[in-house]
Amino acid sequence: MSDNWLAQIKWDEQGLIPAIAQDYKSGRILMLAWMNAEALALSLQEQRAIYWSRSRQKLWRKGEESGHVQKLHAIRLDCDADAIILEVEQVGGIACHTGRESCFYLQLKDQQWVATEPVLKNPQEIYQGKA
Amino acid sequence: MSDNWLAQIKWDEQGLIPAIAQDYKSGRILMLAWMNAEALALSLQEQRAIYWSRSRQKLWRKGEESGHVQKLHAIRLDCDADAIILEVEQVGGIACHTGRESCFYLQLKDQQWVATEPVLKNPQEIYQGKA
Repeated sequence: MSDNWLAQIKWDEQGLIPAIAQDYKSGRILMLAWMNAEALALSLQEQRAIYWSRSRQKLWRKGEESGHVQKLHAIRLDCDADAIILEVEQVGGIACHTGRESCFYLQLKDQQWVATEPVLKNPQEIYQGKA
Repeated sequence: MSDNWLAQIKWDEQGLIPAIAQDYKSGRILMLAWMNAEALALSLQEQRAIYWSRSRQKLWRKGEESGHVQKLHAIRLDCDADAIILEVEQVGGIACHTGRESCFYLQLKDQQWVATEPVLKNPQEIYQGKA
């Protein structure tokens, strides 16, 4: 076991890297979140996406409350080693806390951000009893 | 003309936002770069991807040297307004300075980063006479 692959990553001043979660089949971009070395190592170990929550300053096991776990299929790194892609299977088909498949549901139209994706499940149902 | 759509973005401490360039047809993720408000406004105006180069601290009109311009098809924003997607047509089919389609050509295999994508064009040819 070597941590060399982690050392090759260019972490930012906060020790983080942006991680894009992408549906491994459709290519749909689901979300962008952040990881530190521990989160990335754990993601590999547990074969699911585990992020670093910048707002809560703690590890965030995606799906821990909603059940919407992201099963890991592949990890990709870019040419300057400062961004990664997680190719994932999105359990439940919902990545966003608003109940949509993707967090990128706003599209710019005539200089307005317009929601273009449907809510698949009421967030109150998703997080029912988990608050 | 309103700049309200720009004000709705949650820029980071440096006034930047991560921007994912995605092929508008295949869904392939081409690269991740950064934008400030000026870069994003210009991208919309000129209908091509214009980034903020953090290393050079100046606007970076993608393709200005290589000719590998990214024509803009759509701009998407995520639920917490701190990441965007540019859906683009990648002129020349090459986004990466290494001559590959995507900058994310490294894949983690047995804890090693392995190049899994072919070089489509020699970088020396791409930047010939442009140095």
